[in-house]
Amino acid sequence: MLTLDKVYKASHVLKEVIRPTECIKSKHINPEADVYLKTENLQVTGSFKVRGAYFKISQLSDEEKAHGVIACSAGNHAQGVALAAQKNGIKAVICLPDGAPISKVEATKSYGAEICLVKGVYDDAYNEALRLRDEKNYTLIHPFDDENVIAGQGTIGLELLDQLPDLDAVVVPVGGGGLISGVAFALKSLNPNIKVYGVQASGAPSMVKSLESGRIECLENVSTIADGIKVKEPGEHTFEYCKQFVDDIVTVTDDEVSSAILALIEEHKLIAEGAGAVSVAAVMFNKVPVKGKKVACLVSGGNIDVTILSRVIKRGLLKSGRSDTLTIQLEDKPGQLKGVSAILADLGGNVVSIHHERASEDSDITDCLLRIVLETRNFEHIKEIRNALTAAGFRIVNK
Amino acid sequence: MLTLDKVYKASHVLKEVIRPTECIKSKHINPEADVYLKTENLQVTGSFKVRGAYFKISQLSDEEKAHGVIACSAGNHAQGVALAAQKNGIKAVICLPDGAPISKVEATKSYGAEICLVKGVYDDAYNEALRLRDEKNYTLIHPFDDENVIAGQGTIGLELLDQLPDLDAVVVPVGGGGLISGVAFALKSLNPNIKVYGVQASGAPSMVKSLESGRIECLENVSTIADGIKVKEPGEHTFEYCKQFVDDIVTVTDDEVSSAILALIEEHKLIAEGAGAVSVAAVMFNKVPVKGKKVACLVSGGNIDVTILSRVIKRGLLKSGRSDTLTIQLEDKPGQLKGVSAILADLGGNVVSIHHERASEDSDITDCLLRIVLETRNFEHIKEIRNALTAAGFRIVNK
Repeated sequence: MLTLDKVYKASHVLKEVIRPTECIKSKHINPEADVYLKTENLQVTGSFKVRGAYFKISQLSDEEKAHGVIACSAGNHAQGVALAAQKNGIKAVICLPDGAPISKVEATKSYGAEICLVKGVYDDAYNEALRLRDEKNYTLIHPFDDENVIAGQGTIGLELLDQLPDLDAVVVPVGGGGLISGVAFALKSLNPNIKVYGVQASGAPSMVKSLESGRIECLENVSTIADGIKVKEPGEHTFEYCKQFVDDIVTVTDDEVSSAILALIEEHKLIAEGAGAVSVAAVMFNKVPVKGKKVACLVSGGNIDVTILSRVIKRGLLKSGRSDTLTIQLEDKPGQLKGVSAILADLGGNVVSIHHERASEDSDITDCLLRIVLETRNFEHIKEIRNALTAAGFRIVNK
Repeated sequence: MLTLDKVYKASHVLKEVIRPTECIKSKHINPEADVYLKTENLQVTGSFKVRGAYFKISQLSDEEKAHGVIACSAGNHAQGVALAAQKNGIKAVICLPDGAPISKVEATKSYGAEICLVKGVYDDAYNEALRLRDEKNYTLIHPFDDENVIAGQGTIGLELLDQLPDLDAVVVPVGGGGLISGVAFALKSLNPNIKVYGVQASGAPSMVKSLESGRIECLENVSTIADGIKVKEPGEHTFEYCKQFVDDIVTVTDDEVSSAILALIEEHKLIAEGAGAVSVAAVMFNKVPVKGKKVACLVSGGNIDVTILSRVIKRGLLKSGRSDTLTIQLEDKPGQLKGVSAILADLGGNVVSIHHERASEDSDITDCLLRIVLETRNFEHIKEIRNALTAAGFRIVNK
């Protein structure tokens, strides 16, 4: 049974290892609300997961500690368990599917965990973890459906009340539901007037569907850039806590998450992973009723793969008019490229790449296509460049 | 004359507006030193500049305040002055060259400053600022060569001593020299044993050259991605303070700065601009003698243009083996692309783009070139993919 006592105890135990992360005020995310960012992306290991994992491991019996622990995760839970085991001086084995990003494998290794790469997907790695648990007497550390893990995550609720005593609402990312269960339990126990909203990715709405139908639903397919909350099925405990303590759970799209990641970079100099930014996306795009309220967005983690980050930024540049691709149909005669270049240079369009192709199937036999990727200042600037090219007689064939 | 009194006074005045930014411990930047990051990138306005600007403006006479202030900057100083003027309830005019990134113009506007876009480059905008000052009786707020501005930046030194009383060394970005002058003055006045190291970009080493020759040197050309410290000439005051209080000034390359920016993103979830990351680069690449020491890297700002950030990340991906471009010479017959695709899919190489070109000048008339951009896991993975393609008879023509 989860009790407030247990959350306070977790808070005390965690002082040894975690940072009490700052709440940073944001003028930008939603000008109609008084928004704060709870920066768990700046937590040790880059996410809140270390809280639950550390408290769980600290409460194991000496015999359990002697055998060691095992977990299955390619992400934040793996790093949390690895660090927690290291700090408790016990053995940790982490099973990961063999396609896991090398950066996450290396990070987990760096905390001293033994890595077990399993051929296949997450489910294969999980089954191997169960097999090893039975064979070697390890304790399995579940990523969310465990009362001590939930109590550990709940310490964020206590911190929030310390930092923002007059808080009206908190917005929390939801995957399996461990984080929101702990936070909602702690906050509602101390102040039932605080609203607790959950946010899932629209491509992985397992808790939303489960709450709608009143029983645990298992989704067949889940797809989102917020891989930290790409969970097919809520936990039994977490489902009950959400039913009891959470006011509403909403969803955000991948595009909204991308915009939130970009806003956190540009306005706050903070890197959030997709799962960490869903709370910000929900407030940015008015998915939760926080107008005029003092609201904390839980930015739960920052472990985003740089490849994904690069794509998110590229998409953000396109969507804000700071990049444009021009396809121009040129007559195949000398001097044409020079004419285009002169206009671009005059107007300050910065060329990223040029591809010049003769006689493709898309063009007449005597023509050629020029494909130019440009850095631009904004949509006005793009329009200015396109108008100037058209006025000079060049034919732009894409929009 | 700069005095410790003045720095303490600035510290007191600044409490109204700034955040005392955290020092975050880093295990990663240099494992042989005890490294802390002083996160002025998380400061209000995204950089330390607000400290000097605010203190300077707060000390103006009522008459000066009534006339208003003017500054010339396309960057952090502009935002610092704009916010400081707004908080003091006075008028601010900011002159910028008309090619300035739209994001910086918008940020400056958002603090209520009047924007004056000047055709040309920085020097043209500066001359216009001087003209307007004379015409309208504005007070010009110099970005660095002013004792009150320097005293404001010096408050970071006081904060560092509070946060890390047993600090051995501090590493500080150097452009015009205002920041390091203030920090070095404060630290050395209170504890002469603390080493103060400066860092400039190797493409803009004006203070290094000036200290070498013993007089202020003006560089003809400066070039670096760290645009916040792309300064041709140190100030008169700042040159004297650096001579007297700074232990050494070193330089870092753009590649080293890029690596530092990427390390801050991946390991610390923090966005730094080039100028803000030079201190981290110096410690990462052992440019300063900090082995076994407790050292603070001043991460001075985070206002990096997203376009630049995107390039830095792309470069980082290439340099760490997480991206590869393959150019394959194919026989011009059906099924070739399928063969390549099958190998890539088997080995988990994620295709970003494919360009397939017949009969270019680089290939025989019957051949064609296939150019593939791939996301890869690491250099091992790249090697594995290339070996598999070669073993299957495909000819890779680039390294």
